[in-house]
Amino acid sequence: MIIVIKKNSDKKQFDNLVRWVKSQGVDTDVSVGSNSTVLGLVGDTSKIDIDLVRSLDIVEDVKRIQEPYKCVNRKFHPDDTIVDVGGVKFGGDNFQIIAGPCSVESEKQIVFVAEEVKKAGASVLRGGAFKPRTSPYSFQGLREDGIKLLLKAKAETGMPIITEIMSIRHIDLFRDVDIIQIGARDMQNFELLKEVGRLHKPVMLKRGLANTVEEWLMSAEYIMSEGCKDIILCERGIRTFEPYTRNTLDLSAIPLLKELTHLPVVVDPSHASGLSRLVKPLSLAAVGAGAHGLMIEVHNDPMHALCDGAQSIRPEEFKDIVEKIDVMLPLVNKHRTV
Amino acid sequence: MIIVIKKNSDKKQFDNLVRWVKSQGVDTDVSVGSNSTVLGLVGDTSKIDIDLVRSLDIVEDVKRIQEPYKCVNRKFHPDDTIVDVGGVKFGGDNFQIIAGPCSVESEKQIVFVAEEVKKAGASVLRGGAFKPRTSPYSFQGLREDGIKLLLKAKAETGMPIITEIMSIRHIDLFRDVDIIQIGARDMQNFELLKEVGRLHKPVMLKRGLANTVEEWLMSAEYIMSEGCKDIILCERGIRTFEPYTRNTLDLSAIPLLKELTHLPVVVDPSHASGLSRLVKPLSLAAVGAGAHGLMIEVHNDPMHALCDGAQSIRPEEFKDIVEKIDVMLPLVNKHRTV
Amino acid sequence: MIIVIKKNSDKKQFDNLVRWVKSQGVDTDVSVGSNSTVLGLVGDTSKIDIDLVRSLDIVEDVKRIQEPYKCVNRKFHPDDTIVDVGGVKFGGDNFQIIAGPCSVESEKQIVFVAEEVKKAGASVLRGGAFKPRTSPYSFQGLREDGIKLLLKAKAETGMPIITEIMSIRHIDLFRDVDIIQIGARDMQNFELLKEVGRLHKPVMLKRGLANTVEEWLMSAEYIMSEGCKDIILCERGIRTFEPYTRNTLDLSAIPLLKELTHLPVVVDPSHASGLSRLVKPLSLAAVGAGAHGLMIEVHNDPMHALCDGAQSIRPEEFKDIVEKIDVMLPLVNKHRTV
Amino acid sequence: MIIVIKKNSDKKQFDNLVRWVKSQGVDTDVSVGSNSTVLGLVGDTSKIDIDLVRSLDIVEDVKRIQEPYKCVNRKFHPDDTIVDVGGVKFGGDNFQIIAGPCSVESEKQIVFVAEEVKKAGASVLRGGAFKPRTSPYSFQGLREDGIKLLLKAKAETGMPIITEIMSIRHIDLFRDVDIIQIGARDMQNFELLKEVGRLHKPVMLKRGLANTVEEWLMSAEYIMSEGCKDIILCERGIRTFEPYTRNTLDLSAIPLLKELTHLPVVVDPSHASGLSRLVKPLSLAAVGAGAHGLMIEVHNDPMHALCDGAQSIRPEEFKDIVEKIDVMLPLVNKHRTV
Repeated sequence: MIIVIKKNSDKKQFDNLVRWVKSQGVDTDVSVGSNSTVLGLVGDTSKIDIDLVRSLDIVEDVKRIQEPYKCVNRKFHPDDTIVDVGGVKFGGDNFQIIAGPCSVESEKQIVFVAEEVKKAGASVLRGGAFKPRTSPYSFQGLREDGIKLLLKAKAETGMPIITEIMSIRHIDLFRDVDIIQIGARDMQNFELLKEVGRLHKPVMLKRGLANTVEEWLMSAEYIMSEGCKDIILCERGIRTFEPYTRNTLDLSAIPLLKELTHLPVVVDPSHASGLSRLVKPLSLAAVGAGAHGLMIEVHNDPMHALCDGAQSIRPEEFKDIVEKIDVMLPLVNKHRTV
Repeated sequence: MIIVIKKNSDKKQFDNLVRWVKSQGVDTDVSVGSNSTVLGLVGDTSKIDIDLVRSLDIVEDVKRIQEPYKCVNRKFHPDDTIVDVGGVKFGGDNFQIIAGPCSVESEKQIVFVAEEVKKAGASVLRGGAFKPRTSPYSFQGLREDGIKLLLKAKAETGMPIITEIMSIRHIDLFRDVDIIQIGARDMQNFELLKEVGRLHKPVMLKRGLANTVEEWLMSAEYIMSEGCKDIILCERGIRTFEPYTRNTLDLSAIPLLKELTHLPVVVDPSHASGLSRLVKPLSLAAVGAGAHGLMIEVHNDPMHALCDGAQSIRPEEFKDIVEKIDVMLPLVNKHRTV
Repeated sequence: MIIVIKKNSDKKQFDNLVRWVKSQGVDTDVSVGSNSTVLGLVGDTSKIDIDLVRSLDIVEDVKRIQEPYKCVNRKFHPDDTIVDVGGVKFGGDNFQIIAGPCSVESEKQIVFVAEEVKKAGASVLRGGAFKPRTSPYSFQGLREDGIKLLLKAKAETGMPIITEIMSIRHIDLFRDVDIIQIGARDMQNFELLKEVGRLHKPVMLKRGLANTVEEWLMSAEYIMSEGCKDIILCERGIRTFEPYTRNTLDLSAIPLLKELTHLPVVVDPSHASGLSRLVKPLSLAAVGAGAHGLMIEVHNDPMHALCDGAQSIRPEEFKDIVEKIDVMLPLVNKHRTV
Repeated sequence: MIIVIKKNSDKKQFDNLVRWVKSQGVDTDVSVGSNSTVLGLVGDTSKIDIDLVRSLDIVEDVKRIQEPYKCVNRKFHPDDTIVDVGGVKFGGDNFQIIAGPCSVESEKQIVFVAEEVKKAGASVLRGGAFKPRTSPYSFQGLREDGIKLLLKAKAETGMPIITEIMSIRHIDLFRDVDIIQIGARDMQNFELLKEVGRLHKPVMLKRGLANTVEEWLMSAEYIMSEGCKDIILCERGIRTFEPYTRNTLDLSAIPLLKELTHLPVVVDPSHASGLSRLVKPLSLAAVGAGAHGLMIEVHNDPMHALCDGAQSIRPEEFKDIVEKIDVMLPLVNKHRTV
């Protein structure tokens, strides 16, 4: 960390700052220039509160040199993390496809979709039980019952399941869920992150709508610092000024994350745009960008499309996407494993 | 709601859509143009899922005519809501100042600051007990103990208190807190909104970092639809591309909200910029924009500034701000009441 | 266009509005609801100023039904435009690679890079002569001399050339340039758009840093309405809150544009991220998303990397990217033509 | 400038970098840490291309310590610049109001509005002659004739005039214009900045829709480095995700700019929101934030409102705003001078 001190600053305040920094177990190195003095911090600065330092009257600017995250930092863990979900491996040169309906609606529906997507190449079943909805008047999901139906589809097909948790109160219901999903709106629900981290189960952490890559990694650090080692990151689009798509899928984040962290990263092309006809091009784009997997919404019955989200595609389109992905995987040094 | 149907759309699908809309209790009105057919929805469309409709193959676009919120909508409740917190009134022509330290640190500190800000004109005491921090390694607040210390300061000074809730698990601790604050990161923590709404206590709902005014009002609608009538909105800056300030304070939202909703709106100039030297100009700006109040961070001991957030000002600066505000209030048809 | 009129609006003002709309050659259709009156505009509304209508006291909201662009609109021109640049075809199922250095530096450099990229599969040579730089103290390009050097490389290799115009004053210098590039910062330099449009030469229009897809198409409409038929759009990243990458490449725009317009769209992965190590993954991603081509910065001499922009890759990496692209093209129904 | 070098970097490349930095007239200072080496640059680094340095393989990160602007930097010019426009002073403790119609329409209109706003307290007359419009089909202004009409209104009322330039081609027409306005879309039209800078006339530089404060100051630096000393900055709203207002007025920029630069800053509340009913609250907010002036659109004839932009208010509302501003000015240590 580099602290730029204002010209002609109060000597006593400067000494106070140096003393405080040292009390945090960090060494200092002072270099005096013509327009400002630069205080270099040497050692583990991850506990130094950068906002706090910036607030001081004598401080002109603060620049971080080290990343503020440790457990998730590739610098300290150069090897790829492989998250093993009942034999389904995320990370490294593995490529996985998670698929299923937006919402779980009935046993018939979820089992049917599970079978279809498994046949086409999906290795994990997704399905919304608790649904975060902008409006209190929109369908909030089947909730507890939705999880029971997912477990039935798991029993029927042998596929591991992933579904979103929305409250600490529901944690017990997730005992048999294979991957607990933390949604975009909860990415900085720090109390939830801590409790889920203590379960030591695989977690998928979606990027928040307006969160930087660094904040995303800090949230993964929250989970990991509680002992959980199995985190999958999921890019799902960020909020921008563009109104045509619901969110702007940030595929640059994929190669960046592979430098910064050892954790696997998947892409959700369905929620990113909110438009089902964009799922195919964005899926292929995500593979090209180097993602470790995809999470795609697939619905069963085009005649009941009204009950599905705007972002769902049909099983036959899903199959076509998977076939194209299989051609691409060797180009990005990955292979699909089941 | 206006649904624009693609040219040459399948007649059967169109009829399905009309039938479904009617099954939701909404009437329709069809007008056929040369390039598209427009289906007008007449009646209460707040339960129609706009994303769902947009997803249909035959739909080119959907435009909402009515706002999706009802309880918080000024159209249906033209009179200003007055939130009465133990005699301190928010809304209408009342102007209130909430002040206090970033974090509660000790009994001495919180009581001292409470007395100082009360003397200078604050009517409600703020103080962080549970602190949402980006890093798991940063100070997370005194938590339960922080709330106890706030209650002591309340007993000592008679000031109502406001503090942030971060988890449903802590709800019992907030029994004697006068205003429950829902932080920016929890604005769409829908399960928390619902549970807090059921307490029927005054709630301050901060705007999310990347949330539109409409989403913000929808979150207030969540709380209100559970029976809570006393909601104060708090603008605290939104995320933009500008790096100099932590967030961009959106003061245009103030006059807009006064058209859209009957709820009071206050401004937090401390968190918006993250720079204490911007608190004064932004406070006066917020008054000029028509805010119903301010929430300002004030710290007690400049010698211990290292333990305070970057956004805190000192009691004497706070006093100066309040004096200037008092000159401005008649211009915006408001008065400070204690 | 749908104009929502406020409840209890002044009848005279409403009649004025209807009269004015009709004077613009547009028919109206009134439907009265319980909370508002909706005035539907039937006919060509592209000349109706939507901001102007929104400003009226009696107007609650205005919603556009038709797109405001016509020449570039796929609805009115369903077939793909093929831009033929001396035999190099952009659009349809053609895929083209534009490559070359960030800045033209010397005859030796530009001819060397031209030969290298031609060998590897590029069909058009790029090179900056006039350079838009944030700082007046940064190198502004070789300007006139840069264009002369590009023309030498064209003569030497037979490749068509593309370079950026920054001012109307330089138009004469661009007589022999094959594709005139309009940079992101000039996307709404309307006077430049008009003058370039009148040249009836192929134009590449880059998306502005903070411009929506609709504004981008409106700028293309400016050029096309002056008689130019050969426009290539180029997505190069938009400004967001994420600081890790200089811009956020918006690949969702590619499939969207293919629905909205008949014009070809290429992607510039070099400027989007500003990081050369992201060029390869983002190139493959762009192909997956369905782009009609790529524009990639390639530099010649790794030992002199200090003189190159951050986004340039070396010829051998470029070759590797082209080989991978060739595997992908059949998946997106495209082929590379030279 | 601080350059963070990757661990285990190539020694030869490092030496190359140090040599190159020194060749730019800048000294270096190396400090070796356990995870990275930090190369400090001592001296005037404004000519070092930060993107270029960041592009090097051995560089992990680059942090600027000094601002990249010099002429406009308050550090080197601590006293406020006073821009004197025919006796009307911008900057310091002066407060000025610029007012006039969106577009110049006729002699009668512009003279009438000029007289009205002069009476109410405006000191400079604005009026659009060349109009930047998103659509080629929208009214583009009276252009040359508009400037002639403005000059007539100037002759009639004695008010200095300001109007926007859109192309280098029109520079001769601006000979008698008192303040040349560079619009938001042209903020990075660098060739225009340079040519206008050479005129040595007062310039108002509007902030670009998606430009940071630093980029804005760099554009002012472009103008100033050509010898122009009289620049007024104008904040007019930035692009964000919020759709209710056309742009988000960034009032935090006002106090920030007063720290960073010696140039005066005014606020345009009319264009920021695009809603005339927000002009009054945003005007008072701008005064509270410390602006040196306002630029407000005022239209003459409410019966012809259809010909005015959405953001215009009427003369009587304008008068009310000015009266309120006069009460506020002493709070911000300013006074209105005519």
